[in-house]
Amino acid sequence: MLTNTKNTQQTLKSVGTSPVRPDGVPKVTGLAQYGADYSLPGMLWAKVLRSPHAHARIRSINTAKALALPGVKAIITAADLPNQPFDYVGPERVAVNYWHMTRNILAREKALYEGHAIAAVAATTAAIADQAVRLIEVDFEVLPHVIDVDDAMKPDAPLLFEDMIPRGFDPAPTKPSNISKRLEFKIGDLEAGFASADEVVEMSFKTAAVHQGYIEPHSCLARYGADGQCELWSSSQGHFVVRAYTSKLLGIDIGNLLVHPAEIGGGFGGKTVVYVEPLALALARKSGHPVKLMMSREDTFKATGPTSGASMTVKIGVKKDGTIVAADGLFKFQAGAFPGSPVMNATMCAFAPYIIPNARAIGFDVVSNRPKSAAYRAPGSPISAFAVESVLDILAKKIGMDPLKLRLKNAVKAGSPTIWGPKHSHDGYAETIQALLDHPEYNKPLGKNQGRGVASGFWFNGGGESTASVHINEDGTVVIATGSMDVGGSRASMALMAAETLGVPYESVRSTVADTASIGYNHVTGGSRVTYATGMVVVEACNKIIEELRARAALMWDVDVKGVIWEDGYAKPADKSVGAFEPLSLKAIAAKRAVTGGPIGVESSINAGGQAPGFSTQFCDVEVDPETGAVKILRFVAAQDVGRAIHPKYCEGQIQGGVVQGIGWALNEEYIYDKQGRLSNAGFLDYRIPVASDLPMIEAIMVEVPNPNHPFGVKGVGEANIVPPMAAVANAIERATGTRMTELPMSPPRVLAALDAGRG
Amino acid sequence: MLTNTKNTQQTLKSVGTSPVRPDGVPKVTGLAQYGADYSLPGMLWAKVLRSPHAHARIRSINTAKALALPGVKAIITAADLPNQPFDYVGPERVAVNYWHMTRNILAREKALYEGHAIAAVAATTAAIADQAVRLIEVDFEVLPHVIDVDDAMKPDAPLLFEDMIPRGFDPAPTKPSNISKRLEFKIGDLEAGFASADEVVEMSFKTAAVHQGYIEPHSCLARYGADGQCELWSSSQGHFVVRAYTSKLLGIDIGNLLVHPAEIGGGFGGKTVVYVEPLALALARKSGHPVKLMMSREDTFKATGPTSGASMTVKIGVKKDGTIVAADGLFKFQAGAFPGSPVMNATMCAFAPYIIPNARAIGFDVVSNRPKSAAYRAPGSPISAFAVESVLDILAKKIGMDPLKLRLKNAVKAGSPTIWGPKHSHDGYAETIQALLDHPEYNKPLGKNQGRGVASGFWFNGGGESTASVHINEDGTVVIATGSMDVGGSRASMALMAAETLGVPYESVRSTVADTASIGYNHVTGGSRVTYATGMVVVEACNKIIEELRARAALMWDVDVKGVIWEDGYAKPADKSVGAFEPLSLKAIAAKRAVTGGPIGVESSINAGGQAPGFSTQFCDVEVDPETGAVKILRFVAAQDVGRAIHPKYCEGQIQGGVVQGIGWALNEEYIYDKQGRLSNAGFLDYRIPVASDLPMIEAIMVEVPNPNHPFGVKGVGEANIVPPMAAVANAIERATGTRMTELPMSPPRVLAALDAGRG
Repeated sequence: MLTNTKNTQQTLKSVGTSPVRPDGVPKVTGLAQYGADYSLPGMLWAKVLRSPHAHARIRSINTAKALALPGVKAIITAADLPNQPFDYVGPERVAVNYWHMTRNILAREKALYEGHAIAAVAATTAAIADQAVRLIEVDFEVLPHVIDVDDAMKPDAPLLFEDMIPRGFDPAPTKPSNISKRLEFKIGDLEAGFASADEVVEMSFKTAAVHQGYIEPHSCLARYGADGQCELWSSSQGHFVVRAYTSKLLGIDIGNLLVHPAEIGGGFGGKTVVYVEPLALALARKSGHPVKLMMSREDTFKATGPTSGASMTVKIGVKKDGTIVAADGLFKFQAGAFPGSPVMNATMCAFAPYIIPNARAIGFDVVSNRPKSAAYRAPGSPISAFAVESVLDILAKKIGMDPLKLRLKNAVKAGSPTIWGPKHSHDGYAETIQALLDHPEYNKPLGKNQGRGVASGFWFNGGGESTASVHINEDGTVVIATGSMDVGGSRASMALMAAETLGVPYESVRSTVADTASIGYNHVTGGSRVTYATGMVVVEACNKIIEELRARAALMWDVDVKGVIWEDGYAKPADKSVGAFEPLSLKAIAAKRAVTGGPIGVESSINAGGQAPGFSTQFCDVEVDPETGAVKILRFVAAQDVGRAIHPKYCEGQIQGGVVQGIGWALNEEYIYDKQGRLSNAGFLDYRIPVASDLPMIEAIMVEVPNPNHPFGVKGVGEANIVPPMAAVANAIERATGTRMTELPMSPPRVLAALDAGRG
Repeated sequence: MLTNTKNTQQTLKSVGTSPVRPDGVPKVTGLAQYGADYSLPGMLWAKVLRSPHAHARIRSINTAKALALPGVKAIITAADLPNQPFDYVGPERVAVNYWHMTRNILAREKALYEGHAIAAVAATTAAIADQAVRLIEVDFEVLPHVIDVDDAMKPDAPLLFEDMIPRGFDPAPTKPSNISKRLEFKIGDLEAGFASADEVVEMSFKTAAVHQGYIEPHSCLARYGADGQCELWSSSQGHFVVRAYTSKLLGIDIGNLLVHPAEIGGGFGGKTVVYVEPLALALARKSGHPVKLMMSREDTFKATGPTSGASMTVKIGVKKDGTIVAADGLFKFQAGAFPGSPVMNATMCAFAPYIIPNARAIGFDVVSNRPKSAAYRAPGSPISAFAVESVLDILAKKIGMDPLKLRLKNAVKAGSPTIWGPKHSHDGYAETIQALLDHPEYNKPLGKNQGRGVASGFWFNGGGESTASVHINEDGTVVIATGSMDVGGSRASMALMAAETLGVPYESVRSTVADTASIGYNHVTGGSRVTYATGMVVVEACNKIIEELRARAALMWDVDVKGVIWEDGYAKPADKSVGAFEPLSLKAIAAKRAVTGGPIGVESSINAGGQAPGFSTQFCDVEVDPETGAVKILRFVAAQDVGRAIHPKYCEGQIQGGVVQGIGWALNEEYIYDKQGRLSNAGFLDYRIPVASDLPMIEAIMVEVPNPNHPFGVKGVGEANIVPPMAAVANAIERATGTRMTELPMSPPRVLAALDAGRG
């Protein structure tokens, strides 16, 4: 529901409307091609042998029997991939540890989690490949394992990497550990701050690892030519990054790998890394055939990144008037089997919405025998927010202040300090709080066993590298191409911004995603960066096209280009008193293109800075069944600063989607391990994500505080919305029951246990 | 064999070398995807009902029984396509008659040739589609037909179009005719010219329709979304033209159709038009399923364009010293069932190699009940050259002059007049004649029943619209993309020109063909235009990239861009005495791209003029078996002005390929019709194209007279080579036997009959 669109310029014609998305019909009619929908003549089917053990040394792998099976064309193990230097920093801005990555996609010295890929087979049928996988003999030395983050930090914990010395400690430790690093952000004087507080609350929390839960498992098709030229068709959030990672892991030139973007059936951060692509391509290289590799749902749960579970302690002090004077947080994050949890984001985001003069956030990145964590929507921020926003709720109750008003009193705005250094540069947070304070339902009383909780969330949002091309067809229709995978409707938002800039109808613009050989580099569709950064370069390219169209019109009229303006999709004489020239449409200019210089097209690239962070504030009403512990969401209202809603329906969808995922995280989702370190619920029957019948309609309030750095004021909208729900639900449960939940998920047995404990 | 490469700059490193082509390995290992190799989930198979009659009115089509067959999903007839205005001139420079085109792809009022498409069926299997085709009931009124061009011009000939009044006559006729138009080019005073001649020869000739003979029949896959967005995968010489034609024929916006270029298994001009694409897309639109449509070999012979057969009379007068003083030609061309033979090219090319002060060429475009002719390698020129170069040979013998020296004496050069107005602007012809005069084998004596024939040929070559993009990958490798289908190795020649311009190794450049949404417009790969025009825009784009790379290096060094030069693939300080800056490679600059402005790429478009024509001169030695009439080619030497050989091996291949097709045309190939107007030899068993064992190695001599309008001197090399062979072989047969062959093909029965007539 679009309830608030401030600042919308009335002159905009396309931006701010919600037409049907270009990828909508193919997706609902089944024509869209996802990763598994591609085939090639002579193609083989691949299957992966995965570790049955949570932790085991690989003494040897014998593939002889499997290779002897008729129909088996190739088997690869880690020996088929080049080893990587330990601390490789790639050409990307973000340092990438390929030593870890190559070990994650195919175990080398040890299997580090149940489901860890050990070998992969390509055979003429999927059934033969399955049979061959079972014929591979692996001599494992099973080792003790550790699953929980607190257990993994204990001095006597089984070590995943026997020589890993934690970084970020001063002095540096001498003993290896499962802690890969410690990090700390600090501002002000913590001791003095807490000393000045009237109320201080300190509390510990735990969250479970949860999976991104995308519908489409990872799938790809690979082809490798005998001349080293190869191609991939895969479903990902960024085919340029698939190209970079896969070429590195296989030791091939980037120029030799062409990656085609398949449609994506959900990613949420989890498809910014590679699992199947290097295996399929290595099998194609070894066999000489095209190879298709599809994960099952079980594979996806066991061997692709959930986000971290965490163990946290947060302490906050406030004055009686609600002023936050000090905050301290300790955030211990499961990285999974290899270093790299989102703990840095978590520590930075934890206190980011608030002006806190004295604050500290300490983070630990800790490995354990779980799948390597991967990005999940605002990575890290929802986890630390669960702790911080829960403690704030307790403090608000203690000082008798409305919890929204407590947040409003301390809300950051442009110029406010941050714990990591640079000052905040944008408003938008206070406006989301005010939108809820103004909401007619916010002060309505609730019934028995019902409660209302509020929480807020912060996310940086991203900018970065994007490329777009614009071409004017012979009939005046327009094609725009970018290299940004369309995850959440970006083909539509790009077309809207292009139509607005060119002054033509949305329907005349075809918006596409090009392969890695046909357009310049685009970073992943992640960090809510695409509508901002790729949108910005689309607008830039359209403006260049307008310059070109003016030049063509000037040639047609035989006047100086200064004499031509572009208005409402037409070239017009700058001097309107000159009546001799009829305005020229795109079609009219395109018809003469051959004699005015040839095809009309342009490509632009940028590395966009200037993005604005996302703020979301939410309230929810719940009813707790005291007999079962089941929590029912009665109402959920989510306000978010969207900068400017290019396509309001998709902004609304982003907000609703983030909230729903947050509710699943709050109430049901978790990785459950047995004593052998094996995942017990690797399927959607046992790993329960919310379905439509579990939920009320999520009410989305779009607050528009435009970002002046973007031509239409865009702020990324994909992530801030998933940050508040866990705390909002926990706070609502507390208001309904008087019981404070400190561990996720707040599933019926856990809530019932807490209620029972309270009831004594 | 590369025997002559004059003027090659010794500084070139990549241009002039012959590395493995980028598409070579996929093609020989079977990985390359041709038109028939694409599939989509839920795809239907299409089959076409074709006319069994050469000429018949379509009274009605009843599809009820076919539609009732289980598995049949859609049937289309002409009623499913919009009619087109008769004289539509499209947005393309070349006028396109869509009224004709829509009737050719699906017969409307009448079937005009055996094999003419009447209806098309899409069904779940090919077998069901086949069965359904047989269940369609067509009520035909069979009409009298006409096959031969001279017969078709007779006043009482059956008319294909009852209301077609010939154009180009003054006064305009009042009666309809099968002649669609007359055209005439003239220079000087014909009567005075012939009056001044010492010897005059006039003779009539006939040539047969011959097919381009590409290995791959037309095939495509089409997908049509319920929102009107559609895609095609097809094998063609130009996916942008497939897009233009198909969108027009279906009445859809160009922006809604995305065409992917499949590999092409030969085209030679015959894949510059559409046959299957509009049918498959219309069936996809009607059925809601993707549709694959593949022609059989029989379909390809019966319903796609061969080149015209012709009936011609040529008269030439010379002085005793060999000076040509007058020439007159009448060229009557079969257009097939719809107007549009290459007769204009034929009349322009006929006398083009020679300085002739008084000349006239008259052409007729004539319809008959044959498949519509399509372009075939130097369209028209080989046909008129057969007549002109035969007559010149007779004249040379009459005045006792070496036939090469006769040609050299009259050879055009830059500044020579043409029959069509503008003067010749390039040299190159005389150099090809001289190359043969210098050839060690040219004057060697031959044995019994052996003879040596010479002939020359001219072709305009093309320029036109092309677009290219260049991207620098993160690791410094390079991707270039164009929209020009790679028919004859253009991926390799583009990569060579890019490597040369950038100063990097060929191996670091990946050369690709992009789809219609990913790059700007490129006209068809035809007219020998791609190495010239697309090559030119690749060089332009590389030069722009060098400017960008210099700017990035200047940023990295914090100097003015003027202080940076580009040399041998590195940015270097302009002042070489400044030693502080190490040269920067592409890799070094690419690694810093994020902080110097983002991705590095550029796209350029041109409408290239300034192309140079192609000249070829050839001699061949034959032996004629007096008992069977069989002609054996003993030696074939073909010299051609290639401007500059970018990839000498492919230039050589072009020359050899053109000669071989010319030999097939000369000796064996022809469309044979029975009395009902049905093609008797619609298959490679009965339509005999030369195979390797029929031929000696064709010796190719590349003469390099650079074209100053192209950065590397390129002249198109794909076509001029097919112009001389028919006359060269006929002239050799005459020298061997004393018998002049005036009708093609010079197959054993026809040669034997001519020998017998001479002996009789």
